[in-house]
Amino acid sequence: MSDDRPASSHAFNVGLLGHGTVGSAFAELLAERAGEIERFNGLRPVLSGVLTRSRGSFEEILSDADLIVEVMGGIEPARDYLLRAMRAGKHVVTANKQLLSQHGEELYETAREHGVRLRFEAAVAGTVPVVRVLEESLSATPIERIHGIVNGTTNFILTEMTEGSSYAEALAEAQSSGYAEADPSDDVSGRDAAAKMAILARLAFGTPVHLDDVRYEGIEHLHRNDLQYARELGLALKLIGTAERRHGGLSVRVYPTFLYSGHPLAAISGSFNAVTVESETITEITLSGPGAGGRQTASAVLGDVVSVMTGGARPPAPPLAMPLVEDVESAFYLHLDVADRPGVLASITKVLGEHEVSIKSVVQRGLGEHARLVMVTHPVLESSMRTAIQRIGEFDFVRSAPRSIRVIEEEFI
Amino acid sequence: MSDDRPASSHAFNVGLLGHGTVGSAFAELLAERAGEIERFNGLRPVLSGVLTRSRGSFEEILSDADLIVEVMGGIEPARDYLLRAMRAGKHVVTANKQLLSQHGEELYETAREHGVRLRFEAAVAGTVPVVRVLEESLSATPIERIHGIVNGTTNFILTEMTEGSSYAEALAEAQSSGYAEADPSDDVSGRDAAAKMAILARLAFGTPVHLDDVRYEGIEHLHRNDLQYARELGLALKLIGTAERRHGGLSVRVYPTFLYSGHPLAAISGSFNAVTVESETITEITLSGPGAGGRQTASAVLGDVVSVMTGGARPPAPPLAMPLVEDVESAFYLHLDVADRPGVLASITKVLGEHEVSIKSVVQRGLGEHARLVMVTHPVLESSMRTAIQRIGEFDFVRSAPRSIRVIEEEFI
Repeated sequence: MSDDRPASSHAFNVGLLGHGTVGSAFAELLAERAGEIERFNGLRPVLSGVLTRSRGSFEEILSDADLIVEVMGGIEPARDYLLRAMRAGKHVVTANKQLLSQHGEELYETAREHGVRLRFEAAVAGTVPVVRVLEESLSATPIERIHGIVNGTTNFILTEMTEGSSYAEALAEAQSSGYAEADPSDDVSGRDAAAKMAILARLAFGTPVHLDDVRYEGIEHLHRNDLQYARELGLALKLIGTAERRHGGLSVRVYPTFLYSGHPLAAISGSFNAVTVESETITEITLSGPGAGGRQTASAVLGDVVSVMTGGARPPAPPLAMPLVEDVESAFYLHLDVADRPGVLASITKVLGEHEVSIKSVVQRGLGEHARLVMVTHPVLESSMRTAIQRIGEFDFVRSAPRSIRVIEEEFI
Repeated sequence: MSDDRPASSHAFNVGLLGHGTVGSAFAELLAERAGEIERFNGLRPVLSGVLTRSRGSFEEILSDADLIVEVMGGIEPARDYLLRAMRAGKHVVTANKQLLSQHGEELYETAREHGVRLRFEAAVAGTVPVVRVLEESLSATPIERIHGIVNGTTNFILTEMTEGSSYAEALAEAQSSGYAEADPSDDVSGRDAAAKMAILARLAFGTPVHLDDVRYEGIEHLHRNDLQYARELGLALKLIGTAERRHGGLSVRVYPTFLYSGHPLAAISGSFNAVTVESETITEITLSGPGAGGRQTASAVLGDVVSVMTGGARPPAPPLAMPLVEDVESAFYLHLDVADRPGVLASITKVLGEHEVSIKSVVQRGLGEHARLVMVTHPVLESSMRTAIQRIGEFDFVRSAPRSIRVIEEEFI
């Protein structure tokens, strides 16, 4: 071949690591969009090499590439490849939330040291451009709080349960529709959402947050009745990730949570994702869109590639020390199956009072040996609530384990 | 002063044109955030000059500045100042939607020619980062359609009317709450929303769109009954801006529109703005947040300044020729006050049929001389509908001017 090929003189070489659902969708989308991207940027992105499980050499792909796209998933060898790519002066784009939530600082620091770009829009919230917005638009604004529905699988299941399905039925439906994997434990346990919240918290607050720093609970133990009750009260029940300034530190957590119907996340249904960003200056903005399908994730990855080509992105700034706060206040909904004997309510409220749990509303339903007490509390330290619930569960008139769900309280009825 | 002042060696000089609500909020916010911005970017933004109505020299401000912020509004002298600034090699940030929607190409071309950045996030949808998202994240995705609520004043008024206020009452309430100006005509006529849709359409589709190319209707003629009717059917009535590919061209328009309750824009209430972007690849994403208050607009302007400092932004690509399409299909809601005589419905449906308007549903209410016919049509060319309505209005049994409102038909009941 001669040296004056017009295509290669304006080519931007992309090496692709991983060729599963996202990788193959990315290769397809890149080919479709290359002409349009060249028209806008004067550079044509070209797939210069692909590493699959069985084929390709990382070293060769690396030496040909201007940029490495990593969509293999998992920690190793993805971490090793990304570090080596950046040390070789290559830009990198990754969709790997596990890696970023556990080795983010090492990656960010390597990017800064070697002056390369590290982009990861696809790692959080599918096509919803929350990473970009946090990095760029909001750099002028001190962020107070992020709430997010960042796992489409669980939101799909909860939406089905709101319509009356049991957890098992909803999970089966999610699996048959392709919204849940055969082994859904990372999603339904809340661990996937926790990883994403760790990444978002780092971007929004500048403080390193490891997946292990995030407290989380999943949706496996939710009951159809909880959703039924939410519906009766006009509330939504969602798996909500939260990162916020509290007590001079940062709290990051993921819990099933009741939302009042006016909350911007209450109407997010099916497999959609959404993130609300609050600050004093901007009040709140909400971004929503489909959770990750292969082609949607590929589109976010390609957006990152284009962003690198046009010189836009920077690695996160050096970390800012801020303590991580484990124990924060939440309002709770508390559901108790009790025998309706004299003194039951008095015993329960006495325990709650001793742990400084203040009751906002209480409803008793049923009679005799099968009464049901439903309470909503004012905000209380989670540790106090936990101890109080444990003590209440020990009463002999409490007939099954107490059920508690957090409540985002604004306008709570 | 000596040449080795440590502050100025890392200063990024911002010249501010305009010192009204937004300008003064910007100056305040810049001072508050300068330290944090310097920590992230290594450069400290500093206000190097301010031009007010009565004070300051543009030439002096220009020569001191690395970047010019224009928040004066209006066409001249804002246009002249921005062009001169870019020709002098200065970056510019503006919040001026009138200017961009009428002289956008001249500004974009000047920015490209002189290799400077031109940012305008604050010109559209307040703090909602739709400009950035369209420019960057979505450059890898062919956009099919944008729907937006891009005027907070009218959305506030419509929200009040949904609660039962008359138009006059709702407007007065908007004025006393600071959501509408003393002269609200630019907002309530739809012209402000049309200007914003022209800017968004240019970004999303690459085709120059002048404010004069946008068809628009306002909300002044809406009646409490229209909102009442919407509410009964579980619909929302919003002022919706649309830009979409149609018939091989581009249609950009702003109309009061009924939305079914599941539409992502249906729940946007009060003075909030929101934009939905649809494409085959990403399905749809929605961005929402508060419409422009002074401090919120200032925050968007400062975000643009930071974006220029970090080298992220490019001017829009050279324009792409695509015809503008004026006549597109819409579904309509049609409301007629008629005398209930034999043959009335037959006469009306005959006219509709002659103009290829197909009826989806019809409801008749009332009796005798005061019957009311409410119809919803299938999608039909707007020109056909217009002619049909004109002819129907000429029947002697039609007692007042026919009322028609567009309908976004997905899942319409």
